[in-house]
Formats: sequence, C-alpha cells, structure tokens
Amino acid sequence: MSAGADRRGLTPDEHHRERAQRKKELVDRRIARATIDRGVVVVNTGNGKGKSSSGFGMLARSLGHGFRCGVVQFIKGSFSTGEEAFFRRFDDLVDYHVMGEGYTWETQDRARDVVAAGAAWDVAARMLADPAYDFVLLDELNIALTKQYVDLDAVLAALASRPERQHVVITGRGAPDALVDAADTVTEMRVVKHAFKAGIKAQHGIEL
Amino acid sequence: MSAGADRRGLTPDEHHRERAQRKKELVDRRIARATIDRGVVVVNTGNGKGKSSSGFGMLARSLGHGFRCGVVQFIKGSFSTGEEAFFRRFDDLVDYHVMGEGYTWETQDRARDVVAAGAAWDVAARMLADPAYDFVLLDELNIALTKQYVDLDAVLAALASRPERQHVVITGRGAPDALVDAADTVTEMRVVKHAFKAGIKAQHGIEL
Repeated sequence: MSAGADRRGLTPDEHHRERAQRKKELVDRRIARATIDRGVVVVNTGNGKGKSSSGFGMLARSLGHGFRCGVVQFIKGSFSTGEEAFFRRFDDLVDYHVMGEGYTWETQDRARDVVAAGAAWDVAARMLADPAYDFVLLDELNIALTKQYVDLDAVLAALASRPERQHVVITGRGAPDALVDAADTVTEMRVVKHAFKAGIKAQHGIEL
Repeated sequence: MSAGADRRGLTPDEHHRERAQRKKELVDRRIARATIDRGVVVVNTGNGKGKSSSGFGMLARSLGHGFRCGVVQFIKGSFSTGEEAFFRRFDDLVDYHVMGEGYTWETQDRARDVVAAGAAWDVAARMLADPAYDFVLLDELNIALTKQYVDLDAVLAALASRPERQHVVITGRGAPDALVDAADTVTEMRVVKHAFKAGIKAQHGIEL
C-alpha cells in the first residue's frame, strides 16, 4: 500500500478520478435530459451589481456567434457610457437604442418619463415581433414596469408570441412576479458588499 | 382644487416631482461622499447565472473606454465559445488566455488540472503586477481556489500589491471568505429558476 493510499488502496488522485467520474455521469445524464431547443427569456433582477453587465456579456456572446441583436436601454443613466461606446461599433449586427431620459429622480418629470418609456417599448415590441432578431436585450425594463410606465400585459403578450428561436434578456431590480413566472431563467443579483458604500466613486469599466 | 389633487393641492405629477427631488438629493449626497478614486476588486459568486457574463460585460465596458485588458479563463468549458470568438477580435487591446483543461469532472485527472491551473495563475500574476493592464478578468478563479489548485495567499498578496488604478474581476461559485473580505464589490448570483432544469438545452448567445 503506497503512501497516501486509503483502506481500499486508492491514492488521493485515484479518489479524485473516481469522484470526477461519478460527477461526469451525473452531468452527462442531466445534459442528455435537456433536449428542448428554443429561444429563452432570461431575467436578471435584485439589488446587486451585474444585472446589466451580464446582459451585455450575453450580447458579446451572441455577437461571437454572428447573431443579429437588438438593444433597448429603458433608463439612460449618467452611467452606462462604456458599453454603448463599444457596442455601437457593431452597427451591422446591433441595433442600439438608448430611449430613457435618465433615472426618474434625475428627470423629475413623470409625464416625460412615461412618453420616453412608451417610445422605448414601441421599439422593443417591434424587435420582439421580428424573426430577424436572434437576441434582444431590454435593459432596465423592470424599472419601467415597476413604475407602470410600460404595461406588463403588453410585455407578457409580446414575449409569448415572439419568434421561437429568439432570446430575450430583461434586466432591472424589482422584476414583477408574472414576468418571473413567464421567464425561463431568472437570477437574483444579491449585494454582498459594494465599493460605493465604502466611499469609492463609480469606476470606468466597472460601472461606467 | 383640481381633479386628482390631494389635500395639499398637489396633483399626482407634482407629488412625483416632490418625491423625485428628495430622492435626487439623497443620491447626490451619496455620490458626493464617494470620493475615493482607485481600481477595485469585484467578485461575482453564487450558484446562479451571470457571474462570467457580467465579467465579460465589464470587459466590453472597459474596451469602450480604450482600456488595455487581460483575460484568464481558469476553466475552459465546452461552454464559453461565443465570448472567446468575440473578444479575440480585439487583440490589440485584450490579452486572452484560456488556460484550464475543462471542468474537473471532464478531465478526471487532478494532476493535469493542477498543472493547468498553475500555468493560468502564472499568467494572471504577471498581469496583476503590470500597470499596463487597466482591467483584468480572472474567470472561474474561485473554482481553482476552492479546489486548492491555486494558492489563496498568493492571490491575496498579488491583489494587495497590484497597480493602484487596476480593476480586477474574479468569478466563480464558492468565493473564499478571505477573498470576499479583500474585495471592494461582491455580488452573489442566486438561482431563482434555470431553463436547463426545465429541460432546455444550453443556448448559443446565452450560455455558449
């Protein structure tokens, strides 16, 4: 029995191999069970960081596959300058619309916010009806829904009747329950800690 | 008193404006307090979706600002093909390294995994010591740390002594507590639901 071997005569590396084999069988079985192949609705919600940036990461992934993509930003922040500068370079593949008028506490004008959100939704609804779009990112739509600037039933109907292969990613805190029910994949981004609370300014490349 | 006005004579829109003003003051005060301007360490952990894609979204943001970026993927999945295809196009700005050998249950060879993770860490450590890199993404490093393929103390020391303006994003489930302590911003991506469990295959543009 060699050094480090257990009572079955297995070395740690052999143990690792045995465990890895069992895990691989489990994963392979799960993959074999996942046979449905269609577009999905992904919702990123919660108070933590990464909801929009994850959406833009999936946009990059989609572009890597040569997909035709649509982006509608429902809230134009003083934030979100870097990704816009970047993705606007690919205007052969990405239709990029920044429609919102800033966070509601910045515009301080509900009537203007409602008009801007309605115009943004019109653009989004057109994309959701058009099979030419493989991937549609509706950034911060959840905020427009929570504030009832955009009608939830209209969004649910557009998602339900969209082209079968089309992926849709919807971001923003406070995703309505009915949207969570309608979605295929939902993630809650939970704050563990945030640099901003420790007095660190929003950073280019990270938040901006 | 006009229709819809309250006992103070305010219409709903005026109410909204008042609330928005108070919120703006609060947000402005918080922004004024955040005066520290330096590179941050961001950790995306948890079992949910969006850890890596958020990292790639911040990479896109960084490229939008013309930052010089480094990427090391510690676990090369059968996944993660779209973002590699995409970001390799920007080889003037991005050093892209895929160093891992696949998920551990796929390689089934601990010794080979340890060597691959060590080589990946060598590349990462070089980036963390080089002020030419404005943004460094260490994708799935947490898994290599949890499995003790990479030494946690070496990672903490490299983060602590990195160039002051450099941003680092570290992803992967199971972030060690000491790394969470050392980070500036930490998000837990929590699964609410996942398409895969409902039998839907991993999708290009979303997972692949």
